[in-house]
Amino acid sequence: MEKEQFDGYKYIEGGVCAAAGFTANGLNCGINPVKEKNDLGLVYSEKPCNTAAVYTRNKVKGAPIIVTKKHLEKSGGVSRAVIVNSKNANTCNPNGEEIAEETSRLLADVLGIKPEEVIVASTGVIGMPIYIEPFKNHMEELVNSLSVNGNKEAVNAIMTTDTIQKESAVEFVIEGKSCHLGGMAKGSGMIHPDMATTLNFITTDAAISAEMLQKALSEIVKITYNCLSVDGDTSTNDMVSVMANGLAGNSQIMAEGESYNIFKQALYIVMLDMVKMLAADGEGASKFIECRCSGAPGTDTAIKAAKSVIGSSLVKCAVFGGDANCGRILCAIGYADIDIDVLKIDVELESCAGKILVCKDGMGLEFSEDFAAKILAEKEIYININLNQGNASARAWGCDLTYGYVKINGDYRS
Amino acid sequence: MEKEQFDGYKYIEGGVCAAAGFTANGLNCGINPVKEKNDLGLVYSEKPCNTAAVYTRNKVKGAPIIVTKKHLEKSGGVSRAVIVNSKNANTCNPNGEEIAEETSRLLADVLGIKPEEVIVASTGVIGMPIYIEPFKNHMEELVNSLSVNGNKEAVNAIMTTDTIQKESAVEFVIEGKSCHLGGMAKGSGMIHPDMATTLNFITTDAAISAEMLQKALSEIVKITYNCLSVDGDTSTNDMVSVMANGLAGNSQIMAEGESYNIFKQALYIVMLDMVKMLAADGEGASKFIECRCSGAPGTDTAIKAAKSVIGSSLVKCAVFGGDANCGRILCAIGYADIDIDVLKIDVELESCAGKILVCKDGMGLEFSEDFAAKILAEKEIYININLNQGNASARAWGCDLTYGYVKINGDYRS
Repeated sequence: MEKEQFDGYKYIEGGVCAAAGFTANGLNCGINPVKEKNDLGLVYSEKPCNTAAVYTRNKVKGAPIIVTKKHLEKSGGVSRAVIVNSKNANTCNPNGEEIAEETSRLLADVLGIKPEEVIVASTGVIGMPIYIEPFKNHMEELVNSLSVNGNKEAVNAIMTTDTIQKESAVEFVIEGKSCHLGGMAKGSGMIHPDMATTLNFITTDAAISAEMLQKALSEIVKITYNCLSVDGDTSTNDMVSVMANGLAGNSQIMAEGESYNIFKQALYIVMLDMVKMLAADGEGASKFIECRCSGAPGTDTAIKAAKSVIGSSLVKCAVFGGDANCGRILCAIGYADIDIDVLKIDVELESCAGKILVCKDGMGLEFSEDFAAKILAEKEIYININLNQGNASARAWGCDLTYGYVKINGDYRS
Repeated sequence: MEKEQFDGYKYIEGGVCAAAGFTANGLNCGINPVKEKNDLGLVYSEKPCNTAAVYTRNKVKGAPIIVTKKHLEKSGGVSRAVIVNSKNANTCNPNGEEIAEETSRLLADVLGIKPEEVIVASTGVIGMPIYIEPFKNHMEELVNSLSVNGNKEAVNAIMTTDTIQKESAVEFVIEGKSCHLGGMAKGSGMIHPDMATTLNFITTDAAISAEMLQKALSEIVKITYNCLSVDGDTSTNDMVSVMANGLAGNSQIMAEGESYNIFKQALYIVMLDMVKMLAADGEGASKFIECRCSGAPGTDTAIKAAKSVIGSSLVKCAVFGGDANCGRILCAIGYADIDIDVLKIDVELESCAGKILVCKDGMGLEFSEDFAAKILAEKEIYININLNQGNASARAWGCDLTYGYVKINGDYRS
């Protein structure tokens, strides 16, 4: 997929290590029996970081979610490291919080930092027994091999059913100082983020207060991660964290204004980029779908309409089958919890092969089925909805529903 | 599937013709190119019927929904006939209401009744052009062959991707009078009823006022059809109607009391029976799933928890694959919009092969995977959730998510 370009921001390599002062590593500690696949990752900042985080709203929460929240409260929003394992979600385990706390203590001891400066996260099977030994036996090795090129090892550690690594980073300028912001994310099922997302860790060397960082994160999550759905299932372990160590040397952002806007845009670009990667690599996906809703009376209405279309199993199957079934799109808008006049809605299908209007004023049009099939035969599909009753707009992202999704999730304990 | 038995109610044959005074018919009028498949159905009552109906809450509504509402308002809740076509939903068509009105007029003329005594319904593709000729050319034939054995022709006419006919009827006694109540329903995709359901027509010879009939229907819809989900997509054309012609000779039910309760239970039995058929025959389904939630602080909480589990794509895939993945069940309870203590939840899996506790106090248990696999290998799966925080309970129904669902809905314009 081609990356969207934004003036003043340049995509760079490095993921979570793109920003100054961050190193990372990953290895197999034995939770995953496949030795070639990392299952334990670490991100470390040489300086303390102002930190923001958002978490899943699922009432069943992974133990690491509970422990990380406590840590950031205790440390006053300051962190130094992220430790994350895959293959076991550490959720619905009686000793879950104990394991997460002990992991943090072990890491803090080796790094010489405080346990409450550790962000701890897990992803994998829910309700599976978890033990401390794999963490304990590999902590020194994990720390000793931290490297500015370690982002690839770290992102490998958080992959589950992902087929591609999800990293993104940009370079930008605040007050003449070169700043960097980058992150890594995991997919690719149980994805329907609600005020947070799938595991996602972002680092930056820009200087920004914890309060303004949280504000920026909350605003951007709403229009990026929370507009993503692979299967409608909101995970128990969703978390996005952003760590800012200030090494870029700009004066710390303490309020809204030009510097805040530049920073927020960088956060938007990286999160948007990763969300699109997550959608395209949704479990079993053969096609990426973006639903663009314009002409809405308000942003929330636009978001709800776009998300409803992206979440519809029937729309997802129609895209998989290359069927320009506009009725299913209208149906999904119709059951969204929004107050709109359905007799004003236009719907257009688009891809690199062209675009075609399939619905006007809420009514189906006769159109060239051949051309529509050609449009839908592409890998990236855009469903453009104009509600024609306002000026707000939003986008939502997802993928088609395929035999592959059923296979992955019908197989034993993915 | 074995039918649930209820004292004082006996299952009988006949569907919509089981009650005295009702006849039915069905034929192919040419909307469906497969000539062996009926696409136009009719149910007729020799006497005027007190009538109740509930409709989809989707804001995109089929033209027949709008027209039927108008008719029942105009007639004061009295109807004589139902006419229904499949293969074209008559939704999002500029001339949709005109077609539905004209169809009603044509039928009323042949039957010698008023157009507003006609309930009109459609199911099929949304946004496809529709013409009056097929209706016009077959109306006399449709009426002339009405028969007390015509229920099979009528139910054949409303089938779409259904693989079995859904009919149910019971016999019961009010004030010593033998009463009958029966119905027919269609599935099997775009099923996530919201205050109504998939097309469903019920007839009875019990005497009951339109007001009490509506009350009974609304109560029963909440705990039957609205607890059914095949794919999370709320159709634009959902409708349930109940016609009561009073021929059983009981004194008309005008208020709550013993007779009302007996009648309401009959409605519950028939609707429950049809809901279970709809779930078992969901698009592509290989397994029927019933989620039973008990120990809830209130009925609404129990319903929401059970529906959330039934609606989860990941739970559905796990059942398809025979994977006792209790984490996905807890996850789905956790993202339901309910206020509960997740640390009290027990989860049990059950089928005719036995039952097994997989989660206790919100934590995953170690259990025999072999026995769990044996349980899940059966065709009818029960997920028993005890919230352990109250006395309310509810059930919800659905099916597994299979390759078949993807195939049906990836194929052209199903």
